[in-house]
Amino acid sequence: MIQIAILGFGTVGTGVAKVVAENARQIERKLGEPLAVKSILVRHFKDGPFRQLMTDDFTKIEEDGDIRVVVEAIGGVEAAYDYTRRALGAGKHVVTANKQLVAEKGCELLALARKKNVSYLFEASVGGGIPILHPLTQCMAANRIDEVYGILNGTTNYILTRMVRAGASFADALAEAQEKGYAEADPTADVDGIDTGRKICILADLAFGRQVDPGQVPMAGIRNLSLRDVKIARRAGYRVKLLGRAVRTAGGGRSAYVAPHLIAEESPLAGVEDVFNAVVVRGNATGEVMFYGRGAGEKPTASACVADVMEVLQQSPRREEIGWSPESGGFTDPLDLPGRHYFRVEDSLTSAAAGFGQVEVLSEDGDTAFLTETMTGREALARCGELTVLAHIPVLA
Amino acid sequence: MIQIAILGFGTVGTGVAKVVAENARQIERKLGEPLAVKSILVRHFKDGPFRQLMTDDFTKIEEDGDIRVVVEAIGGVEAAYDYTRRALGAGKHVVTANKQLVAEKGCELLALARKKNVSYLFEASVGGGIPILHPLTQCMAANRIDEVYGILNGTTNYILTRMVRAGASFADALAEAQEKGYAEADPTADVDGIDTGRKICILADLAFGRQVDPGQVPMAGIRNLSLRDVKIARRAGYRVKLLGRAVRTAGGGRSAYVAPHLIAEESPLAGVEDVFNAVVVRGNATGEVMFYGRGAGEKPTASACVADVMEVLQQSPRREEIGWSPESGGFTDPLDLPGRHYFRVEDSLTSAAAGFGQVEVLSEDGDTAFLTETMTGREALARCGELTVLAHIPVLA
Repeated sequence: MIQIAILGFGTVGTGVAKVVAENARQIERKLGEPLAVKSILVRHFKDGPFRQLMTDDFTKIEEDGDIRVVVEAIGGVEAAYDYTRRALGAGKHVVTANKQLVAEKGCELLALARKKNVSYLFEASVGGGIPILHPLTQCMAANRIDEVYGILNGTTNYILTRMVRAGASFADALAEAQEKGYAEADPTADVDGIDTGRKICILADLAFGRQVDPGQVPMAGIRNLSLRDVKIARRAGYRVKLLGRAVRTAGGGRSAYVAPHLIAEESPLAGVEDVFNAVVVRGNATGEVMFYGRGAGEKPTASACVADVMEVLQQSPRREEIGWSPESGGFTDPLDLPGRHYFRVEDSLTSAAAGFGQVEVLSEDGDTAFLTETMTGREALARCGELTVLAHIPVLA
Repeated sequence: MIQIAILGFGTVGTGVAKVVAENARQIERKLGEPLAVKSILVRHFKDGPFRQLMTDDFTKIEEDGDIRVVVEAIGGVEAAYDYTRRALGAGKHVVTANKQLVAEKGCELLALARKKNVSYLFEASVGGGIPILHPLTQCMAANRIDEVYGILNGTTNYILTRMVRAGASFADALAEAQEKGYAEADPTADVDGIDTGRKICILADLAFGRQVDPGQVPMAGIRNLSLRDVKIARRAGYRVKLLGRAVRTAGGGRSAYVAPHLIAEESPLAGVEDVFNAVVVRGNATGEVMFYGRGAGEKPTASACVADVMEVLQQSPRREEIGWSPESGGFTDPLDLPGRHYFRVEDSLTSAAAGFGQVEVLSEDGDTAFLTETMTGREALARCGELTVLAHIPVLA
């Protein structure tokens, strides 16, 4: 019997307890012995089938030598950070879905885990139940990873899908997402690109081997996205999707940012609808590989956590594994990345062409919408000159 | 310096040598020391940059204590089987892309590896450079896997794409694929579903934990697929794709088969075009997850082999890992799986309706094409009665 503890009993924590119980047979067959939840750390005791496992005293878990793995499902940084350090310090493996903590403190926590000869794993922090970090770091280990990008937030993808399919405004689509439970009452972290930003930081850390601080990464969400641009893009054969993107740049540099993008409808990402997520990894040997599925939800996320628990238990002693350098230098401003740009301006096509030269006109109907040739974001902004810009959206190459 | 040998120097073997050389820095950073190819087993010596590594004597590799991992890139069963057993017997890890050998002898070779405390890994045998076996067995380990299906052969998918897009007949599309180097002079293994069949056997072995013999698995290819059916399906909102499919059935059983399927165009698989592959795994916790990319080619396949090499080297001692029971009982005839069916018959709609009751008519133009309600394949065949069947294609639910 292998015993674990769960910290926090919200969506992820509850899911972990359920998956351990419901898939007990599959798990035991793979581990060679049963897996059981011994303790659940909560702030407030709740009745239910797990009531007798609950405690509000972390010290009991920290000092319990029978508990080999701790699943941190608290979220955020403060308490989660403190308990994770203490659990690792006590020689326990820690597994989490906490993207904020991993994006901000992952490098430090991995170093602590290494020192204590235990593991810190977080497959569930990106893409929920979709295997992505493990394939990126292990299955594609023989590649130089050149780029990672994807639809990393189900809430915003649901909103964008409704805008395209039902012609809903952002505000109406958000209200609908909240009604269905896909968006929280305070949707800031989702719609302003912060959740996507944390995930692309983790992907960039692992892909390029050096720290990308969330503070370095420009994050633009979809709050100001106009239905008019979504419709013009659609007529021209593009979908608008919120992407996190991380790119290897010349001289060992790298860049990362979050922004809505125009994506050609032939691209496999363009067909990713509703709350689904998809991540594309471009390696110099494999080319582009895509991972697709439900990026959130109780059971998908929990099953990724439990798989990490099983992995640390099957590695004994600890395998030399994922990690990255704390050095965050060499970050290229995403404004210096080349690409095409979608603009909608108040001005005439003649004025637009004066600034941009050759453009591909998408709409001339009161305002002017067009795609530029390939240029950096910085150059595109400079060329706007006197134009009155109503919308500016990068195009995924 | 870690030294490996490559057996065979065709597409995969050459790719492995190239990836080891070209991505030496990435590989060394992850392994902590350089990786080098020491020997390459060939039947005929060839000039080129790897000439001095070549040998035609396997015994030299077998007896070389410096060689820790052998990449078997011979293909087929006979010599590959013999050398794999001898390499494992000599205490060397073996890595391969050889789907035929894994499908037929994988269970036995894994048992031998276990006995010798070494690893036998074959990520590249399914999906080329797309990570799939590793995610299936490890990242989704906390799931009960209920179904695996996918587009597993790039050659046939290229042919089907040309039939849909250019209205080419099967024969013309095959000729074009051969011209482009996507199909071999003898295309039997690809177009008759045998290659897909070997891959779905491996996926089923790993997903369900028991041997599925290729001989048990009905394999239908696309050789007799008519352009007319492709066009009727397309007008009705379906694409025709060759799928391998493995399903968990009641009472611990499982089934597997290969056949062309009608796939609704909203399905993410429907957009998988040209030589791309995609595999969908349905777990009881994660739901459906899809893996997409180039399923073949020198570098994608080689990079998956090299990642396996790196994995076995990072696990020391050998990790308890993948494997399945040799017991092949409990196989459900795919004719007993429920689903909808596409039929095209010479007869009138009235005759068709007499056999099938409620049907969804897709075409009445000389012949009659329709979709049935959900029923087993066995029942569908029984209901054909006196009808003259021109085409019968299952529909993916």
